[in-house]
Amino acid sequence: MTDYKTNLRLKLPITCIILEVILIILFATLVQYDDDTDAKHWHENMEKHNESNYENEFYFRYPSFQDVHVMIFIGFGFLMTFLQRYGFSSVGFNFLIAAFSLQWATLMQGFFHGMHGGKIHIGVESMINADFCTGSVLISFGAVLGKTSPVQLLLMAVFEVTLFAVNEFILLTALGARDAGGSMTIHTFGAYFGLVVARVLYRPQLSKSQHKNCSVYHSDLFAMIGTIYLWMFWPSFNSAITEHGDDQHRTAMNTYYSLAACTLATYAFSSLVSHDGKLDMVHIQNAALAGGVAVGTAGEMMLTPFGSMIVGFLAGTISTLGFKYLSPILESKLHIQDTCGVHNLHGMPGVLGAIVGAITAALATEEVYGEGMKDVFPDVSSGDITASFQGVRQAISLAVTLGIALLGGLIVGFILRLPIYGAPPDTNCFEDSIYWEVPGEEGTHEEMTTVQVEDVEKPING
Amino acid sequence: MTDYKTNLRLKLPITCIILEVILIILFATLVQYDDDTDAKHWHENMEKHNESNYENEFYFRYPSFQDVHVMIFIGFGFLMTFLQRYGFSSVGFNFLIAAFSLQWATLMQGFFHGMHGGKIHIGVESMINADFCTGSVLISFGAVLGKTSPVQLLLMAVFEVTLFAVNEFILLTALGARDAGGSMTIHTFGAYFGLVVARVLYRPQLSKSQHKNCSVYHSDLFAMIGTIYLWMFWPSFNSAITEHGDDQHRTAMNTYYSLAACTLATYAFSSLVSHDGKLDMVHIQNAALAGGVAVGTAGEMMLTPFGSMIVGFLAGTISTLGFKYLSPILESKLHIQDTCGVHNLHGMPGVLGAIVGAITAALATEEVYGEGMKDVFPDVSSGDITASFQGVRQAISLAVTLGIALLGGLIVGFILRLPIYGAPPDTNCFEDSIYWEVPGEEGTHEEMTTVQVEDVEKPING
Amino acid sequence: MTDYKTNLRLKLPITCIILEVILIILFATLVQYDDDTDAKHWHENMEKHNESNYENEFYFRYPSFQDVHVMIFIGFGFLMTFLQRYGFSSVGFNFLIAAFSLQWATLMQGFFHGMHGGKIHIGVESMINADFCTGSVLISFGAVLGKTSPVQLLLMAVFEVTLFAVNEFILLTALGARDAGGSMTIHTFGAYFGLVVARVLYRPQLSKSQHKNCSVYHSDLFAMIGTIYLWMFWPSFNSAITEHGDDQHRTAMNTYYSLAACTLATYAFSSLVSHDGKLDMVHIQNAALAGGVAVGTAGEMMLTPFGSMIVGFLAGTISTLGFKYLSPILESKLHIQDTCGVHNLHGMPGVLGAIVGAITAALATEEVYGEGMKDVFPDVSSGDITASFQGVRQAISLAVTLGIALLGGLIVGFILRLPIYGAPPDTNCFEDSIYWEVPGEEGTHEEMTTVQVEDVEKPING
Repeated sequence: MTDYKTNLRLKLPITCIILEVILIILFATLVQYDDDTDAKHWHENMEKHNESNYENEFYFRYPSFQDVHVMIFIGFGFLMTFLQRYGFSSVGFNFLIAAFSLQWATLMQGFFHGMHGGKIHIGVESMINADFCTGSVLISFGAVLGKTSPVQLLLMAVFEVTLFAVNEFILLTALGARDAGGSMTIHTFGAYFGLVVARVLYRPQLSKSQHKNCSVYHSDLFAMIGTIYLWMFWPSFNSAITEHGDDQHRTAMNTYYSLAACTLATYAFSSLVSHDGKLDMVHIQNAALAGGVAVGTAGEMMLTPFGSMIVGFLAGTISTLGFKYLSPILESKLHIQDTCGVHNLHGMPGVLGAIVGAITAALATEEVYGEGMKDVFPDVSSGDITASFQGVRQAISLAVTLGIALLGGLIVGFILRLPIYGAPPDTNCFEDSIYWEVPGEEGTHEEMTTVQVEDVEKPING
Repeated sequence: MTDYKTNLRLKLPITCIILEVILIILFATLVQYDDDTDAKHWHENMEKHNESNYENEFYFRYPSFQDVHVMIFIGFGFLMTFLQRYGFSSVGFNFLIAAFSLQWATLMQGFFHGMHGGKIHIGVESMINADFCTGSVLISFGAVLGKTSPVQLLLMAVFEVTLFAVNEFILLTALGARDAGGSMTIHTFGAYFGLVVARVLYRPQLSKSQHKNCSVYHSDLFAMIGTIYLWMFWPSFNSAITEHGDDQHRTAMNTYYSLAACTLATYAFSSLVSHDGKLDMVHIQNAALAGGVAVGTAGEMMLTPFGSMIVGFLAGTISTLGFKYLSPILESKLHIQDTCGVHNLHGMPGVLGAIVGAITAALATEEVYGEGMKDVFPDVSSGDITASFQGVRQAISLAVTLGIALLGGLIVGFILRLPIYGAPPDTNCFEDSIYWEVPGEEGTHEEMTTVQVEDVEKPING
Repeated sequence: MTDYKTNLRLKLPITCIILEVILIILFATLVQYDDDTDAKHWHENMEKHNESNYENEFYFRYPSFQDVHVMIFIGFGFLMTFLQRYGFSSVGFNFLIAAFSLQWATLMQGFFHGMHGGKIHIGVESMINADFCTGSVLISFGAVLGKTSPVQLLLMAVFEVTLFAVNEFILLTALGARDAGGSMTIHTFGAYFGLVVARVLYRPQLSKSQHKNCSVYHSDLFAMIGTIYLWMFWPSFNSAITEHGDDQHRTAMNTYYSLAACTLATYAFSSLVSHDGKLDMVHIQNAALAGGVAVGTAGEMMLTPFGSMIVGFLAGTISTLGFKYLSPILESKLHIQDTCGVHNLHGMPGVLGAIVGAITAALATEEVYGEGMKDVFPDVSSGDITASFQGVRQAISLAVTLGIALLGGLIVGFILRLPIYGAPPDTNCFEDSIYWEVPGEEGTHEEMTTVQVEDVEKPING
């Protein structure tokens, strides 16, 4: 058996401090306030363009940003607390790698598509994009949850954020694809990247920890906090960086109806496939969210409310069935131990979303979009390409995303496999006490403390 | 004893799928984007009226919508997790019936007051209204919590949403009443509808499950998540669909102060009436919210901050006293087993809110409202009616609401009483394991898993 | 031993009711809607200035207000639930004293800097300020958590809110200091006030309750809900009352990056100083937030993103090291029993924030701020003072804040020491059951209920 050294006293501090120092140096040399956050430039622009403060990007996007922020830190964090003894790590490592990733993403995304005269300009839109990129890393985290050390996770984030930015640049800038809510850039990428990493990190002896790889009553309730927040704020997620006006409005509404339909599908199929018709918390916690993933690309388009509902219903169905029938096969045949089932929540629904997006784009007409065409499909509106070709671009983007995710995950997986990051042993996966000071449970504690009380009472006495 | 068949393997999937298919077909034939969500129309209107994107309804209402959304899914959902073994069902059925109701409400409300040339036009305002209507169903859910199957609940939602839309149409359109925060349309209606349903579903043998009809330490903390979210976002709830400008602003502020005063009253009377002056979590979780209910009608009016505080104080007082003295009588004399005490939180405070609204409306003067009169009381402003008559309208609206709620609840109650929906037996109410796969508790689990570990360790061995 | 009378049956109701009656009377005589909430005035002003509804202050600040509101009620409330048997009191007393404080703060802050013709005018900005002042009281609550009765806490709030308003008036109005996010007015003031109160209330025999002064697994997860909400919404907190436009935007962004850097520092040093390199939940729950405190003053200034990150990194470092090395000394040498470690989270980072603010102010140039100077430093912009002198003002403000906090805390501490408020005995601190009806735990409960079931089953029988 490998000699696992899980003491991180030097590894984790050094990793964190080096990364943060690099971040600060790069921010100091490369990053500037954009025109909406810079005191001088904003006031100059207001005067020049006769604008008012309410035209500052802040008021268009900050409420959406905060909703996205809640999804990243509460949503993803608590969704993963379903494991009985991994709550500290789920919320805590989520917190750590998200706090790192959003800084690193600001640089990487800025480097690939936000340079102005050698400087990266940042504001609320770059903050949303940084959170989006972070979401992708957290999806991958879900695939390797419980089997990785925080040092491994930080390293994974370094590489994944970089590849995310490359892929995003190819899709949105080079290929001219549309993907406002990130069915491809965020969900498909994050899921397949994470699944390949999980494959490379395959542990044949993981069954030794299998008894901890399940929930208890209260941990499932904590996880529902994550689920419900993700569900509620997904309309904000998909609409956060669409164009102002009807685009943000429509995207939010499409997502709202997609999720509602998805929820009914999830309950229906969970009951249908489970033992005695009972509902399975794993399905409710995860598959009910697939409707948000699946309208991530097409949500900003004129998908129509009933179109969104059909997509949501399909997403909930394939996601629930995936948990029931596909996940066990992935594990036994392909040796992919996908702790949170990200293939069912982000993988398949992400691919579905990409396909729906390609079809919806190909069907776009001036008749339906009017002047709004230039917001959603600027190249179609300008006459440079046809709507069908936009559909082709979308389809190519899906293929590119899958390619970069799979290849990237493979390489990063092998890097993470080196036995130097303090990963947990097979017998102690899914266990907080490896990396955290863990207090006792109520029951244990009370017994212990009863003794303590006696000990304490005696010496004091008078 | 009735032979309870609680296996929902066919009933629940069929119900969900049929309902969702009907919803999708009706959306496909009846529902369209409104002018603020439609790409073509929004751009046409911007050009025609020389408007800007920041005038899109989205920016006036979407933050309020998200707050309301949190109240519906986290607020109501977690408020009901106070029961020791009903957390999955509380959050999970809340989730299911809310996801259904908001779709159905879009149709019903659109049918009664949102038709444009045979089509229902939808946008953020209709989303808020759909969430409001859903809130009413969730209030009724509180009255029958723990004693109903999800199939019953979905059926209840089908009827209640329909009747809600009828009542809302009579009040707001036919009678010209004002009820921005829904003291009447949402709270009074939802509470009395639910109470009558609970009466019809009376279980004389419910004491067999009585030991599960109470909280444990952690379940009370989960419930406080629901309470606090409802409390914080109630200002957004009451102001979400009031007119732009001073109206939204004033409504939010009135609600803020009403709730603050209500909280002090709740703590005061909880301590006063409880054993040994100790505070009772049931009061804090519920009665502290009554201040939001009670300014649901008058909140948009010039109620003044101190007026709001008086209303809030009264609401907290009657709600707390209701929990202590009235609920036991309702159960023993009237045979209404009101699990969550919705009569105290939504029923009486809703009626109080309706009365306060009628009085405040009757006292409205041009002196106080100025040009703002046309936002709050358009018919008084236009000179069609006097302020006193607006007060009469409000009072009639309360009577109509009570009538429709009581009669509707009666009929729906009898429909739900049919023994075909998989309701739980008297001995197993307030119990998740009837409808959910439930994992073990920590204590139990650890023992069990210790055994498992041994089992697992042996075969692997080398 | 003092005879502790913890029955609050009369004390708490009388305190709450008297306070609320006083509040209502003062609101009735002193408080009016401001121009943005008053129906008549808003419509008059719209006409006069040719304004539109979207220029109502509500749309600039209400989303920020709600984020702040969540921090006050969920953030502070749940952060303190880390104690194993003090969750009801943490959330519940937080709720009570916040509901009182925000009303009292409206009056006190209005009295000191919001009078218009003898009346206090209120709107969303005063609501934010009232929540801010409440935050300060809740910080002090953290220092005395578990050792005080709700009557003591309400009394503390009465005095602290008053002194807060005095200090705020001196700083912002008399001295002309800038402190948008309240590094001085909120954090430094609240922390040192609370620490002195804790010192005066020193309990030499507190070790008798020491076994309850720690967390259990689930209570730490509940506390993380508080932590994460505070962390996520801190950008809204610091930017909530800055000027419109670039100021709000920039402040939010500076805070975002400061917090991210702070989180990495916290994880690094927590692992470095803890036993076996394991992470300590106390650090993560608290020190990761210090970055928000430390940019409370300079956040609205042109601190630059990398400047914010440096400040955040320092704050996380000193906060974590404070928990490890300073808190034990404060307790053993200075007899300050700081339950939540507010010195580490709010005290030192607050002072750091004040210093950073003074330096950043002193370095302000027209070159960097342009026309934006008049928003951030109006007196520098008008030429009345130099930037360096603004720095001096900031430094003096810190000294004044510390003086008022220490002296005020001393006096209030002695008032709170009178043995008439029902404080808990030394043997029963950190224990909900003193003031709350507490249900059993799952384990206990089930045994108990098994017996109940038998009791219940027999009489029913047929």
